[in-house]
Amino acid sequence: MRIDIISAVPALLEGPLNHSIVKRARDKELVEIHVHDLRDYTENKHKKVDDYPYGGDAGMVLTPQPIFSCIEHLTAQRSYDELIFTAADGKVFDQGDANELSLKTNIIILCGHYKGVDQRVREALITKEFSIGDFVLSGGELPAMVITDAIVRLLPGAIGDAESALKDSFQDGMLEAPVYTRPASFKGMDVPEVLRSGNFKKIEAWQQEQSLKRTKERRPDLYNQIKKEY
Amino acid sequence: MRIDIISAVPALLEGPLNHSIVKRARDKELVEIHVHDLRDYTENKHKKVDDYPYGGDAGMVLTPQPIFSCIEHLTAQRSYDELIFTAADGKVFDQGDANELSLKTNIIILCGHYKGVDQRVREALITKEFSIGDFVLSGGELPAMVITDAIVRLLPGAIGDAESALKDSFQDGMLEAPVYTRPASFKGMDVPEVLRSGNFKKIEAWQQEQSLKRTKERRPDLYNQIKKEY
Repeated sequence: MRIDIISAVPALLEGPLNHSIVKRARDKELVEIHVHDLRDYTENKHKKVDDYPYGGDAGMVLTPQPIFSCIEHLTAQRSYDELIFTAADGKVFDQGDANELSLKTNIIILCGHYKGVDQRVREALITKEFSIGDFVLSGGELPAMVITDAIVRLLPGAIGDAESALKDSFQDGMLEAPVYTRPASFKGMDVPEVLRSGNFKKIEAWQQEQSLKRTKERRPDLYNQIKKEY
Repeated sequence: MRIDIISAVPALLEGPLNHSIVKRARDKELVEIHVHDLRDYTENKHKKVDDYPYGGDAGMVLTPQPIFSCIEHLTAQRSYDELIFTAADGKVFDQGDANELSLKTNIIILCGHYKGVDQRVREALITKEFSIGDFVLSGGELPAMVITDAIVRLLPGAIGDAESALKDSFQDGMLEAPVYTRPASFKGMDVPEVLRSGNFKKIEAWQQEQSLKRTKERRPDLYNQIKKEY
């Protein structure tokens, strides 16, 4: 898989793409990630990539030319399955989207920044718009890294233990049961006895019960969805 | 404001905290952000901060001792308004949470990693648990940066133009109208005439109409919420 990320502030795209699971997946050549700086594509002599919005509003808007040039440069070399834009008004990204995207070969993620991008970019080039939630961020770079991380960890071989990914919250539409590790007693607080019993049937029943209880208490929306499906 | 972020993989917390709006807010001393490496607090002679989960599951769990030690070290020096844990099963973080947290003085954000943290940490120390959405990530570091970014840009003086923050999507429960910038015509696509009219009354009416239309089409859940409130 290949992911191209286009940004006006590529320095924001450090850390999460170069450590932990994403780094390991890159090292194992499960994924290629390329970051593109919009400033390398602008024809503006002052290297500007943004301008004032029409209509007299505050904030700056990414201009169409550098984005079109960058995307035309990429699509001339290979075909892309999806051209994603991270936008506050996009579809709310969820695990189903991550699962689906993890099966693609080449995708582009364009990060919004400042007040957003010129609407003509969205209409002419973008195939999917995703928001990661109902909150405002200073740019689309964090959402791009969130989407990348959610996809990359699903690639076969990316995480050590396949079972661990399958048992994650959301993969079955439910929240996970609480987890405990050593020591069995810490500051007077004990690990529930059932988990130390060695009786795997009982443990599984407890985890299922906790998982259902937690989902019902914390996310009645998910719980009602599960009830409908089963 | 002071934000302390505790992580088992602090290298993931680069980029977003050191560039753009968050960097500017730190430079202006609107916010202090301190990153703490759990490995500096472990009493394990191999510097381990995780261990196998009870119950025989796959994956690793962050052990309680280093987290308790780090948090006790911090709370001995100052009092904290909130102790946040980023967890897939937390409350879904939204703009209201960001607004509320931006008024606090000192907060701690503990990042989950691997399979999660020992449940005793959550029960004994944590005051708020946030998820940024219904998808699985390789750690709580990206969510911690998302929460930090959403808070910091609300601090007075953090973004150049206060009006820009107020007109963002979600601050009034609606999605923003499309934005356009120069040139007026690009590859045969024109900026809507009304935006170039200079008639601010007409422009505002168009933006309001587009904002409502977009919210209704893309986020009927938000649209129905607004209808109820007005």
